[in-house]
Amino acid sequence: MEKVNVGKRILGANEQYAHKNSELLSRRKQLCLNLISSPGSGKTTTLVRTITDLSDQLRIGVIEGDLRTDIDAQRVRATKAPAIQIETEGACHLSARQVNKALSRLPLDALDMIFIENVGNLVCPSAFELGEDGKIVLLPVTEGDDKPAKYPGIFAKSKALLVNKIDLLASGLVDFDLERVKTDARRLNQDIEIFPVSARTGDGMDQWYDWLKSQVQKAHA
Amino acid sequence: MEKVNVGKRILGANEQYAHKNSELLSRRKQLCLNLISSPGSGKTTTLVRTITDLSDQLRIGVIEGDLRTDIDAQRVRATKAPAIQIETEGACHLSARQVNKALSRLPLDALDMIFIENVGNLVCPSAFELGEDGKIVLLPVTEGDDKPAKYPGIFAKSKALLVNKIDLLASGLVDFDLERVKTDARRLNQDIEIFPVSARTGDGMDQWYDWLKSQVQKAHA
Repeated sequence: MEKVNVGKRILGANEQYAHKNSELLSRRKQLCLNLISSPGSGKTTTLVRTITDLSDQLRIGVIEGDLRTDIDAQRVRATKAPAIQIETEGACHLSARQVNKALSRLPLDALDMIFIENVGNLVCPSAFELGEDGKIVLLPVTEGDDKPAKYPGIFAKSKALLVNKIDLLASGLVDFDLERVKTDARRLNQDIEIFPVSARTGDGMDQWYDWLKSQVQKAHA
Repeated sequence: MEKVNVGKRILGANEQYAHKNSELLSRRKQLCLNLISSPGSGKTTTLVRTITDLSDQLRIGVIEGDLRTDIDAQRVRATKAPAIQIETEGACHLSARQVNKALSRLPLDALDMIFIENVGNLVCPSAFELGEDGKIVLLPVTEGDDKPAKYPGIFAKSKALLVNKIDLLASGLVDFDLERVKTDARRLNQDIEIFPVSARTGDGMDQWYDWLKSQVQKAHA
């Protein structure tokens, strides 16, 4: 019983900070999206290409979550976008409190939107609200088409799914049924937007950019 | 403070069951290895090929951990090996108690060794001992060569690292520096055995099988 109660208190404290973050972002009419996926799914590559391709249209800031190292923040900063690194020191997800501190260090007045890149983990980050406007889940084709069925939580909660690394399908070396993923994801979440992309080659990214810009406009309205 | 204390109690209860499992396995001189990796890294494909290729040499039983579905257990059972499914119902790792129950359902007298396939998660399962003889971490080349640096915990604790999906390197579509992975993994763990393999094509699996058989012999001795 105690475990459950303490669990509730931890989530309660997280929700208070999530609420603070949500209020701050909504007051500033800033879109904030929380990128969630397994390690190595292409979150940072997607961010770097998105920031670069939209550099004359959207001013994007980034909050980077990692267990250790600031490798990802360095990759983002190379684009000139501001990036705040959070090292979780082994913790398996970002907390709303960590994001609250990071928001206070970002130059919010100079930004149109914020991406949070969560710790690489398809499970735990989906349970912790950060005050974001929406979650974006990435699934590379190399992870297999059974993932919405096996890890339903994050697919049920996400606004959009980026099916990444589609350039590898042409190699014929990867077995992946895109229709199965679409069907399983929409069974969990009928409103989910699905974008097959390759953040490496740029394939399919324009549709993602159009949707992203429409979300920024909605937040600004 | 309370959070920390309860955390310790949870780990304490887990350790008690881990100790029970370890005693049971050691009494029976049975090797038990705990496979840990991100979702879609090829744990099940590795198991299925290993069980099939060694079917006349090793009698292998499997404990399958998944958040939802028994897709993986079905794949293992198709090889005729006994597989016990644990659905964690959203929890991000297997517990020693769950493994204890599963061990009681496996036909231990008819087995030489047991694989535990943990929940797909590169972070949380590394913190929960299950009473196993060792952890095996899988890293597919598609996840990128920065993973030992970014997720050091599991690489520091594993007996062996399977660098999987090496067949994709030949496509030229995947950037992956195997030497960087070897160097970073050995910096964390000088004793770690490293096997570059493709569980899909069978490349490199013989070295893994030789090591596996040597571990089974050690446990039987």
